[in-house]
Amino acid sequence: MNRELALRMCEAAIKEAARTGALVSVAVVDAGGHLTAFQRMDGAGIAGPVLAPAKAHTAVAHRVATADLAPMVQPGGELYGLAGDRFVCVGGGVPLWDGEGAGGRVIGGVGVSGGTVSQDVACAEAAAALWETS
Amino acid sequence: MNRELALRMCEAAIKEAARTGALVSVAVVDAGGHLTAFQRMDGAGIAGPVLAPAKAHTAVAHRVATADLAPMVQPGGELYGLAGDRFVCVGGGVPLWDGEGAGGRVIGGVGVSGGTVSQDVACAEAAAALWETS
Amino acid sequence: MNRELALRMCEAAIKEAARTGALVSVAVVDAGGHLTAFQRMDGAGIAGPVLAPAKAHTAVAHRVATADLAPMVQPGGELYGLAGDRFVCVGGGVPLWDGEGAGGRVIGGVGVSGGTVSQDVACAEAAAALWETS
Amino acid sequence: MNRELALRMCEAAIKEAARTGALVSVAVVDAGGHLTAFQRMDGAGIAGPVLAPAKAHTAVAHRVATADLAPMVQPGGELYGLAGDRFVCVGGGVPLWDGEGAGGRVIGGVGVSGGTVSQDVACAEAAAALWETS
Repeated sequence: MNRELALRMCEAAIKEAARTGALVSVAVVDAGGHLTAFQRMDGAGIAGPVLAPAKAHTAVAHRVATADLAPMVQPGGELYGLAGDRFVCVGGGVPLWDGEGAGGRVIGGVGVSGGTVSQDVACAEAAAALWETS
Repeated sequence: MNRELALRMCEAAIKEAARTGALVSVAVVDAGGHLTAFQRMDGAGIAGPVLAPAKAHTAVAHRVATADLAPMVQPGGELYGLAGDRFVCVGGGVPLWDGEGAGGRVIGGVGVSGGTVSQDVACAEAAAALWETS
Repeated sequence: MNRELALRMCEAAIKEAARTGALVSVAVVDAGGHLTAFQRMDGAGIAGPVLAPAKAHTAVAHRVATADLAPMVQPGGELYGLAGDRFVCVGGGVPLWDGEGAGGRVIGGVGVSGGTVSQDVACAEAAAALWETS
Repeated sequence: MNRELALRMCEAAIKEAARTGALVSVAVVDAGGHLTAFQRMDGAGIAGPVLAPAKAHTAVAHRVATADLAPMVQPGGELYGLAGDRFVCVGGGVPLWDGEGAGGRVIGGVGVSGGTVSQDVACAEAAAALWETS
């Protein structure tokens, strides 16, 4: 992950948010889950600075989109109890892969928070799409 | 628990992981729940360094496999509310017993994280099997 | 604080860092001490994502530059004991004022981490200068 | 950082500890400060599992040996207040560099705890020496 790409990913997520009228925060983290860039749209709430980096970190830590973790941490799910302060298992976090299959590595992640879950997911995917074509 | 055995237990868990294509972290803790040895396979995610020691610690603290705690911490279960940052009640942690029945003592634990829950459980049991025959 | 200005403040801090060869992280927070924008230069360490927002938050919380807090939290100082995980009282955080004197309000803050303390302070002041002329 | 090298680094640190009669814990972390391998010598205390990973993480985060941070966080030092739960600024943690000068990157770290500070430092340097020649 580098700063220039991280900034463009933030912009891509915010562009998607603006399209649907959402007010979001966007975080981009590196392979260690540490923040590389963050932007909060004017008017977005104060949960975003907590949740966007946490979703991005969670996606990197578990190498899976947080939207895919969400059903697994529900009551009865096999990862019930995982969700909490440490890992935020709500849609809007996506890992960024370098390579596919067994040789693939997670090199960072994006997290979005502030809109509805589906808006957050769409914003994160818009940012990830930029990564995939970069 | 001693270091030489703990290292062999890590290797046993990793051998089992490699057999099923999982990428895991393995932690072995002592009777106080404190880390004795830890190994993360190349390519395994960064949640493992948090979750593998936590599963091992939880198994020692409650003297039960975390897979057995999982149903008990569900809504309606009698240990509901226990799962969280302090205790990780997802399968993959097992206590190590010295002796059986009322006279038995838990002398340590193993925790595995990184694969599916069933893979993690199998890896932890492979490590525990080494303990039982040592 | 708004996003567009926060981004320009990050750029101003980074420009100053580049001038002296420092590799820094820059955080801009709002009047509530919550992150508005963050950027980490390529090659900057992973302490920055923790310390830059913390310095900015500390500067807002105490309405004073963290460099001015530093001597006050020393043994014998009247704020001894304040420095810790909650407030980071090392130079590099500055509050942003709207108005002067009794009627002035702190509307945000900047925090920089990654260089020497004097480099961090210079970067934070470069960002604050942009605010003052905006 | 990879597991095979991390294990050899643990062994190198323990060999040095044995030479001077110290009982230590050794942690090797990756570029994100996350644990890759850990070993505690038989008889070593329970502070090691906390302090060895924390020293290694601190060395990576600040890109400097924790022994060099120690004087800076003393009362009157310019980083006073930094030492705490988050960063352990006691000798025994060293960063591992890939390349020198402006282009160098920290790719991991070693942390040792359990002996005197000078013993811990010697053990960490023995592990780092292995890295430098690998």
